[in-house]
Amino acid sequence: MKDSLRVAIIGVSGYGGGELFRLLSSHPNVRIAHIAAETRANESLASIFPHLPHWGKIEKFPEDRPWEDVEVVFTAMPAGQSGKVARAYRDTPVRIIDLGPDFRFSSRERFQEWYKMDHPFPEGLSRATYALVEWNRDAIRKSEILACPGCYPTGALLGILPFAKNGFLGDGPIIVDGKSGVTGAGRGLTLETHFPEIAEAIRAYKPLDHRHVPEMEQGIEQLSGMPATVIFVPHLVPINRGLLSTIYMRLSKPLTAKEAQEVLRRAYREERQIVFPGVPPHTGGVRGTNLTAIHAECREDMLVVMTAIDNLVKGAAGQAIQAMNVMCGFPEETGLPMIGAFP
Amino acid sequence: MKDSLRVAIIGVSGYGGGELFRLLSSHPNVRIAHIAAETRANESLASIFPHLPHWGKIEKFPEDRPWEDVEVVFTAMPAGQSGKVARAYRDTPVRIIDLGPDFRFSSRERFQEWYKMDHPFPEGLSRATYALVEWNRDAIRKSEILACPGCYPTGALLGILPFAKNGFLGDGPIIVDGKSGVTGAGRGLTLETHFPEIAEAIRAYKPLDHRHVPEMEQGIEQLSGMPATVIFVPHLVPINRGLLSTIYMRLSKPLTAKEAQEVLRRAYREERQIVFPGVPPHTGGVRGTNLTAIHAECREDMLVVMTAIDNLVKGAAGQAIQAMNVMCGFPEETGLPMIGAFP
Amino acid sequence: MKDSLRVAIIGVSGYGGGELFRLLSSHPNVRIAHIAAETRANESLASIFPHLPHWGKIEKFPEDRPWEDVEVVFTAMPAGQSGKVARAYRDTPVRIIDLGPDFRFSSRERFQEWYKMDHPFPEGLSRATYALVEWNRDAIRKSEILACPGCYPTGALLGILPFAKNGFLGDGPIIVDGKSGVTGAGRGLTLETHFPEIAEAIRAYKPLDHRHVPEMEQGIEQLSGMPATVIFVPHLVPINRGLLSTIYMRLSKPLTAKEAQEVLRRAYREERQIVFPGVPPHTGGVRGTNLTAIHAECREDMLVVMTAIDNLVKGAAGQAIQAMNVMCGFPEETGLPMIGAFP
Amino acid sequence: MKDSLRVAIIGVSGYGGGELFRLLSSHPNVRIAHIAAETRANESLASIFPHLPHWGKIEKFPEDRPWEDVEVVFTAMPAGQSGKVARAYRDTPVRIIDLGPDFRFSSRERFQEWYKMDHPFPEGLSRATYALVEWNRDAIRKSEILACPGCYPTGALLGILPFAKNGFLGDGPIIVDGKSGVTGAGRGLTLETHFPEIAEAIRAYKPLDHRHVPEMEQGIEQLSGMPATVIFVPHLVPINRGLLSTIYMRLSKPLTAKEAQEVLRRAYREERQIVFPGVPPHTGGVRGTNLTAIHAECREDMLVVMTAIDNLVKGAAGQAIQAMNVMCGFPEETGLPMIGAFP
Repeated sequence: MKDSLRVAIIGVSGYGGGELFRLLSSHPNVRIAHIAAETRANESLASIFPHLPHWGKIEKFPEDRPWEDVEVVFTAMPAGQSGKVARAYRDTPVRIIDLGPDFRFSSRERFQEWYKMDHPFPEGLSRATYALVEWNRDAIRKSEILACPGCYPTGALLGILPFAKNGFLGDGPIIVDGKSGVTGAGRGLTLETHFPEIAEAIRAYKPLDHRHVPEMEQGIEQLSGMPATVIFVPHLVPINRGLLSTIYMRLSKPLTAKEAQEVLRRAYREERQIVFPGVPPHTGGVRGTNLTAIHAECREDMLVVMTAIDNLVKGAAGQAIQAMNVMCGFPEETGLPMIGAFP
Repeated sequence: MKDSLRVAIIGVSGYGGGELFRLLSSHPNVRIAHIAAETRANESLASIFPHLPHWGKIEKFPEDRPWEDVEVVFTAMPAGQSGKVARAYRDTPVRIIDLGPDFRFSSRERFQEWYKMDHPFPEGLSRATYALVEWNRDAIRKSEILACPGCYPTGALLGILPFAKNGFLGDGPIIVDGKSGVTGAGRGLTLETHFPEIAEAIRAYKPLDHRHVPEMEQGIEQLSGMPATVIFVPHLVPINRGLLSTIYMRLSKPLTAKEAQEVLRRAYREERQIVFPGVPPHTGGVRGTNLTAIHAECREDMLVVMTAIDNLVKGAAGQAIQAMNVMCGFPEETGLPMIGAFP
Repeated sequence: MKDSLRVAIIGVSGYGGGELFRLLSSHPNVRIAHIAAETRANESLASIFPHLPHWGKIEKFPEDRPWEDVEVVFTAMPAGQSGKVARAYRDTPVRIIDLGPDFRFSSRERFQEWYKMDHPFPEGLSRATYALVEWNRDAIRKSEILACPGCYPTGALLGILPFAKNGFLGDGPIIVDGKSGVTGAGRGLTLETHFPEIAEAIRAYKPLDHRHVPEMEQGIEQLSGMPATVIFVPHLVPINRGLLSTIYMRLSKPLTAKEAQEVLRRAYREERQIVFPGVPPHTGGVRGTNLTAIHAECREDMLVVMTAIDNLVKGAAGQAIQAMNVMCGFPEETGLPMIGAFP
Repeated sequence: MKDSLRVAIIGVSGYGGGELFRLLSSHPNVRIAHIAAETRANESLASIFPHLPHWGKIEKFPEDRPWEDVEVVFTAMPAGQSGKVARAYRDTPVRIIDLGPDFRFSSRERFQEWYKMDHPFPEGLSRATYALVEWNRDAIRKSEILACPGCYPTGALLGILPFAKNGFLGDGPIIVDGKSGVTGAGRGLTLETHFPEIAEAIRAYKPLDHRHVPEMEQGIEQLSGMPATVIFVPHLVPINRGLLSTIYMRLSKPLTAKEAQEVLRRAYREERQIVFPGVPPHTGGVRGTNLTAIHAECREDMLVVMTAIDNLVKGAAGQAIQAMNVMCGFPEETGLPMIGAFP
């Protein structure tokens, strides 16, 4: 495997990081050279996850002397951390694929406003590409830093852009009602994600005020050219994986359900990882995969688009690997299972 | 207890019927005189539900010679069935409280259109009252037939009416994104509700086309005077009980979140069974009770109202008992627990 | 209500404490005079639990000047804490009902060995009664301190004692395979009880080495006179409430299943809160109640007894209230719902 | 791929069959030539499972003119059905790998006694091998018919045989307490597996009387030479996948936990698909894989062994493919993922 791409995973102890390890360890063109996690350094993978094997030692990222034996570094870290990694690798050929928020906004100020901290590497922002693969392939190929979209923006944008880009939307805000599995809230302990508090319950959280709102609005404008206001309410649902976005949009003129579905099929006709179940999508159908299942219905000039993804795969690790595949010239589905384990 | 109200429950083998038994059996002013279920006649309660006691025999409703020793009959039956019971009791003082759909529409034609069958007792429609207690108390007191709202309309109307009634709403459809626990789909066996198909998954069903849409639209118009278009997408969530409605409305002029919350508090200031958690409501907080938890947030002229109910209590059996309490002059919370079992 | 029994709840912020509040607040003979929780003092109940009402302020227990306006104090606290409360009330008529482990062992040394700390009030041990009501009523009536059994010992002892006490058991260890809902692990945050780590999974924990083993062995010996070795493996199951104990025992001579079931019925023929479903019990059938559902099967000289309880009710708060009822001369089921909410 | 092994899957519409399709469709040495399901013939895969692609048409197995273009036929069918398939292929080189019960018993009478039907192909019994790969590799290589063990016997035998085979067990029955996810009960609709009846609940079923008991007893005797009595109680737990077996055995002389763990490691030192977590195994750690996680603890002469498998993979489809790999000379893990998706 001497021609394998050598990669590192920083933040391997979280759910996104664990999923990167799962998928990259069987990717035929990749060799994992380093795994790191700030708080679990020197432990073994098998001691921090029940499904992962013993695999070397977990390191700490050596910020002062960054690893030289890697070509791509995946960062799955809290806000403000991956920027430091990218800074450590500036002016090197090493490319950064960030699953965190540091490079999602193109403006330093917006980052500061929403994350309440200085950006760790503002010069990097102009070198970064928003890596929603289906809508940004060309820029991804030549970028130094890839900013993978958040899980909610991924599900929302894939449903909105086919209509926004092609002039189908009328006035008024776009309403995104998101429902996420609990892994979306991360592996950090909170009362909200303590089993008994959320099993057998549903709740909304941060209605209208989630950091993903400005990301969605920026994404719509940058990728379709159309400015948009997004009304977004995320909900926590007692499942592990799965993110269903129900998106309500006003059309510029009435469409039938069939016509709306045709808009989607046309927009994604080349995409092997977008599927059209013909009925409202079921998160169970995409679990463990990088697939997006999508469907539309209409009532006069109101359009409803529903998208289902696995928040840890298409919403995080899988999308990052898909972007890596594009960046490195591998077939886009390489290393990404096309059939999940259902039920 | 010779002065107790004598009641019957028809349809006791379903989840709504079982919940009626649970609540009525400890209601201090009620004596259960008959229980019936078409398909389980002659069995004992304990053999059809793991939580209910041995309690006489389940009967079949004697349509030709309806029981005379009852004052109130609760019907929790499929469409077209409870109408027959009401017909059997016409011109008697026995009052019908129907948890099913037969008397929810005021128009025979609308029933026919949505349920694809003739109405079994069209003369009853004008004697029936839509029993959303908080908005229709006076009519309930003197009505012969009470049509309890569906679970989704209950959650939606309680969130919409304070704004619709008081002139706060602007143009455009009202969007109701509903999330229901699986008991909402009933006790009949379907692949959709087979455990492995829905555990660890979320899905929408019947988007824009659910029978609850015309019920919501009629309810808004009749109870607030304002005509409305409702865009409704229900979702199935892997919990047993709980119904969260996230309602998106355009305001006639911007409100702050605080002002919107104040509208709710004023509308329900006399209601002991409506609670204001001050944060997005958690279905776990109302589980097992007849409570409705409600909250509002705003972004400019867009209003989001969230309501949480237990679909089997406030969405079915509890609301029916609350209506019976009003009809019979008992204090409205009698027999309805104010604190549920959490977690 | 001037003749109500005035009680206090210390440790109200945990699941057992919250359940005590739920049940005691509707107990017809009780008035809650104080609620306390070390770490949540000065907050309101409604801010720490989604299902509880605003209710005064949470206090800290005033160890130096214990409340004088109470007759019974419920303590639901970590090991070593309730002993201090009992000490503060020594030589007063105030009676302590402890849901924690401090007074379960009759020997100070055994407490020290298993809890790795000095006992806070060793003189109290001889004044305490092991409050497994069904097997210890007389002692409970006149005791100053009641030590409520742990949840696992409750489920196990209720299944074992009818056979141990009446000479049906042969040689060999008693094997208890316990399966508990996650509330049994408490409200403290741990990775093991973080939703994604346990949803969709089952695991054993502390096999053969759980603190409940010596409690079970002591309970069998003290209440039946027969010494016993217990092999106990507890398991965590992804439900909120429910504890199923599958107990394997060797008989001194073969019994039929029917004979074994008859032993159980005879032992508990006076018990209104023990039920015999006639089939393996379902934890859903006892959820929210103080009931124990029990069943037995045999194969030659091997006996299997299965018991189902709600770990927060019969395994904690409900059993404590049942013991209070006995202690204070109220009918034993007072304030304890006989029908739970299923599903 | 002209040298690929051509296989058929009969019974593709059940959970075991769907899992066979998932795994075989990415097996590098296999080409799926036919899929069949009695009751879903002429439908597409995508219409019967949300996670599977459109893939030809589902056929009915042509019993009179069995397909000639296949080398291996997988049967995942109810009792009595796969025997007919095997009969149709008798005297041909086509090999049968049966996930169902028809060929698990070596005696026709025992099949008849437990399944209450005549065996459809009794002559096949002597040509069949019990395909517990780890303990029966040589026989599998040359067999015409492979009978894959049931899910419970798989988990139990893998824990019992290392001790039975090597003389560590003393007198007395072997107690197997099994806990299975709901997919283990199949895809057929029953009230027991209707979501609300089992979510938030645990129950035992068929205690002491399950068809897997004689299979376990036969397996122990045939593979270790030691006759055994098995006391088996299976439990249904509200998860989709996962089977945890807690096995209680009396040792012929005391062992330490470390010694017992060493017995397991020695027995399975060549097995790449058996893992030793060093703590009680977690079903989440093996989900989606063909791995078995195993652990042992002791207290004097009582031994507890715990095994965790995915009931649909190692307990069904994965084990069948592992056996096919052995039979056909492929490396044993081919096509079987070594890392599952957790959480």
